[in-house]
Amino acid sequence: MAGDGRAASASGGLTLDDLSVGQRFESGTHALDEAQIVAFAAQFDPQRFHLDAEAARDTLFGGLAASGWHTASITMRLLVGGGAPFAGGLIGAGGEIAWPRPTRPGDVLQVFSVVQEVTPSRFKPERGSVTLLSETRNQRGEVVQTLKARLIVPRRGPAG
Amino acid sequence: MAGDGRAASASGGLTLDDLSVGQRFESGTHALDEAQIVAFAAQFDPQRFHLDAEAARDTLFGGLAASGWHTASITMRLLVGGGAPFAGGLIGAGGEIAWPRPTRPGDVLQVFSVVQEVTPSRFKPERGSVTLLSETRNQRGEVVQTLKARLIVPRRGPAG
Repeated sequence: MAGDGRAASASGGLTLDDLSVGQRFESGTHALDEAQIVAFAAQFDPQRFHLDAEAARDTLFGGLAASGWHTASITMRLLVGGGAPFAGGLIGAGGEIAWPRPTRPGDVLQVFSVVQEVTPSRFKPERGSVTLLSETRNQRGEVVQTLKARLIVPRRGPAG
Repeated sequence: MAGDGRAASASGGLTLDDLSVGQRFESGTHALDEAQIVAFAAQFDPQRFHLDAEAARDTLFGGLAASGWHTASITMRLLVGGGAPFAGGLIGAGGEIAWPRPTRPGDVLQVFSVVQEVTPSRFKPERGSVTLLSETRNQRGEVVQTLKARLIVPRRGPAG
């Protein structure tokens, strides 16, 4: 499925008219290590449980954990890289995000998505919106993030 | 207020018992430029409207715009840097995010937050949760992101 996704993306991607509720996509993988976790945290989320494995032991996380925004950013990278092969790119207006468990050094992340809604725009005939639920899982299949996003997706051709 | 926030954070931060609905916080500022936007996008969101000002003109954005996840990450940096001076750091379980307008090169971002709910944990006497609504605004006061996050915050002392 990841292969199909990449192929579709290279050929222009799926339009709103190609999408239907229940359709599933699977991304490639991203291997996360301590250096990446610390580099992201130093720039955007400098808290001890994201910066220092030793100091992280005495925190709620019980050890080094990636910033949730790092997990979100890697998820976006995997979606853009073929995990959600939509025409026009991935443009989100917003969504709901949750981190049910920490992302750890050594985790290999992969994103599994399912189309939940496909809605043509009432006022803009050239596009519509898609609600996509994406689960980011580690190498044990545990969900480290859920993201329900509303994306803007173009239609195939002129309306009518 | 940003000054108060930083002072409180340095001295250990506000516990659940120090927080009440309606309490407001204001972060420092972050000046965003094209180089930062492109660097983040190259790593996490490599789409033409985040990578190349020229190519971005023909897209829905009509010009270079920061990845929404970049705006979210800068918002976290501003919150951690004094914009939400809570004891124990900023630990989020998730939330709702929206980007009502693009973040652009040259924008100076600042985060304005208000406490919406303060809920002691029913089962863990040493902590509770706080719902914090954070607006990220540009130098014209326009909202580029809203984030409603549920944060885990410790209580002042032993329960009882």
